[in-house]
Amino acid sequence: MNNKRVLQPPARIGIIGGGQLGRMLTMAAKRMGYFVVILDPNVGSPAGQVADKQIAASFSDRQAIRRLAELTDVVTYEFEHIDADMLCEIESEGYAVYPSATTLRNIQDKYRQKTLLSNAGLPVPAFYRVKNREDLMQKLEDFGLPVMLKTCSGGYDGKGNFVIREKSDVEAAYNALKKNDLMLEKYIEFTKELSIIIARDFSGEIKYYPVVENIHKDNILRITKVPAYIDDVLEVKIKSIAQKILKTLNDVGVFCIEMFLDTRGDIYINEIAPRPHNSGHYTIEACVTSQFEQLIRIITGMPLGSTELLSPCVMVNILGNDTVCGRYTFEGIENVLAKEKVYLHLYGKSSTANMRKLGHITVLDDCVKKAEEKALQVLENIKIKPL
Amino acid sequence: MNNKRVLQPPARIGIIGGGQLGRMLTMAAKRMGYFVVILDPNVGSPAGQVADKQIAASFSDRQAIRRLAELTDVVTYEFEHIDADMLCEIESEGYAVYPSATTLRNIQDKYRQKTLLSNAGLPVPAFYRVKNREDLMQKLEDFGLPVMLKTCSGGYDGKGNFVIREKSDVEAAYNALKKNDLMLEKYIEFTKELSIIIARDFSGEIKYYPVVENIHKDNILRITKVPAYIDDVLEVKIKSIAQKILKTLNDVGVFCIEMFLDTRGDIYINEIAPRPHNSGHYTIEACVTSQFEQLIRIITGMPLGSTELLSPCVMVNILGNDTVCGRYTFEGIENVLAKEKVYLHLYGKSSTANMRKLGHITVLDDCVKKAEEKALQVLENIKIKPL
Repeated sequence: MNNKRVLQPPARIGIIGGGQLGRMLTMAAKRMGYFVVILDPNVGSPAGQVADKQIAASFSDRQAIRRLAELTDVVTYEFEHIDADMLCEIESEGYAVYPSATTLRNIQDKYRQKTLLSNAGLPVPAFYRVKNREDLMQKLEDFGLPVMLKTCSGGYDGKGNFVIREKSDVEAAYNALKKNDLMLEKYIEFTKELSIIIARDFSGEIKYYPVVENIHKDNILRITKVPAYIDDVLEVKIKSIAQKILKTLNDVGVFCIEMFLDTRGDIYINEIAPRPHNSGHYTIEACVTSQFEQLIRIITGMPLGSTELLSPCVMVNILGNDTVCGRYTFEGIENVLAKEKVYLHLYGKSSTANMRKLGHITVLDDCVKKAEEKALQVLENIKIKPL
Repeated sequence: MNNKRVLQPPARIGIIGGGQLGRMLTMAAKRMGYFVVILDPNVGSPAGQVADKQIAASFSDRQAIRRLAELTDVVTYEFEHIDADMLCEIESEGYAVYPSATTLRNIQDKYRQKTLLSNAGLPVPAFYRVKNREDLMQKLEDFGLPVMLKTCSGGYDGKGNFVIREKSDVEAAYNALKKNDLMLEKYIEFTKELSIIIARDFSGEIKYYPVVENIHKDNILRITKVPAYIDDVLEVKIKSIAQKILKTLNDVGVFCIEMFLDTRGDIYINEIAPRPHNSGHYTIEACVTSQFEQLIRIITGMPLGSTELLSPCVMVNILGNDTVCGRYTFEGIENVLAKEKVYLHLYGKSSTANMRKLGHITVLDDCVKKAEEKALQVLENIKIKPL
């Protein structure tokens, strides 16, 4: 991996996925003078709006992915639900794809991901494959409640997850997910949800962003607090886990590791994402190098940037709700912008829906508590209106 | 002006001019969720690359400018060499243009600009209209040498300016510029070139960015040092001049005031730009709100953002040279990115030429001196190669 050639601007970067992550990646790449092509089925996708070019095609369109690779010098992706075989084929034809198709394959199937981590001696919640309804019932007996029933692939923002707290939940959980390959995971009674963004380049160098604390509601990230309020021993432990994960994956890129801290102070890895992550959006304003610029640096063979935290901060997501669906506008943005060190990001999505991520706000302040208070206060001001 | 309605995202912003200023304006607007349309004759212009839409038409195409206004909720511009009559016509049809056509007209003709400033009691170098060659010779007798012969409109980056130091320079100066309306200005023997970016919104509120020092070579900005090394008395004086200028213009927008500090410590206004300015690029990383976001806030009726300086810094321009012309790539960018707190901006221009502005670098450090050393050192690393 050491012989990666450096791609000088205006080299061409291909991104699979035109959502908000692709958009912020594109903005970082454009600032640095690169040419960016997006692959996304929706014309005028959030990323397509700011890219040089968009190929409007399905993510399962092999010809379109090949075309993206042909048009660009390096390909990356903003989400993991891509056909890994297809990426593998592109790679074998000599096109550069980072992180690799192997990494994608290892991560996108959660059973495979957990097996890999477990085999490497990394702390994951106890987990089992579920073959069918009978198998599920049997395993529940062995396992005890509560448990998480999960689809092995395709899940995100809580879709594909079901917590079974009582025996009476089993039918609903199984029926909701039974069309997929399933796994069962011990439910961790956590005191904190933590995550860390890490980056590894072609020389094998690793940079760690600070450990952050996340608040989810209905399985959707609502708040990221930076830095997490944890002791030094735990911080060191998490970074050592992160390093081990990168060694196990043996790949380049930006990764997010989501973890649970349980009541006994133990850490369990919940999930790895092989890409920039919602819990790393704060890096745009609060770190010397954002997670997006970091990934562009890595895939172009440029040196890693500093991950130094410049200020405590809090990020809150701006989500759609169940009262407005379809085309929309905002109200009250002037109240957000009236506050100091409040940074507004709106993704330009053409329609809203309940729980859809429409944007985020990052608030910098002297301490996390003040930043959080301000963030929640300004979030209250934002109204979504039908257009 | 107080009744300006607030344009909530995803309202539509039109920008006349697709160069680097338009590009950075667009990036700020896209981050905030606005829809951006660029008017520029060159398809794939620096701003067009990151905008939702580009109208490829000449700046003198009245129908195209009307179309831009029709497609958007508010129009602004990144440079002042636009037909003010045309903008005036658009305004009279009820379209929103900021800063106004009147301001543009007052500023784009330098004789008119200086007259306005002089009438308001503001310090400008002595200046006269030049009617013809005989008039020039006569005025030189009255005025003494050295002087600046200038075209009243259309000049930028030193184009349209000629310093007459000796009588023998007169013929060359006159012949170079005689096709234009001309003016003569006393040449100020300056010790420092200073500038300040200022912003005024619809409520009449004013925000001042710090005073900065600029180094030009061959009439092109090379270095901006932030903040300028000047005493408090001078800082206050400059802000009071800035305030008076905004009162005189009685308009909204982001403006740059370029000034000379002469050997006696007196300030003379050199030029006003009714738009973000090269000497304000540093605001992207070094201030809470960039000059670009500030203009977007103003024209959408949003409140002004803080202009607080977060760190001393130095900005250096990346310029084309006389050895490479046309399509190009860079070399050595990895050496730029290897240094901490060095922020690279490349504009994606399709071709290079001698002295063309291809990008800039902003370096943050503990003090201006260290930032300057680092900036000049990294600039040395960048090579431009034909493609």
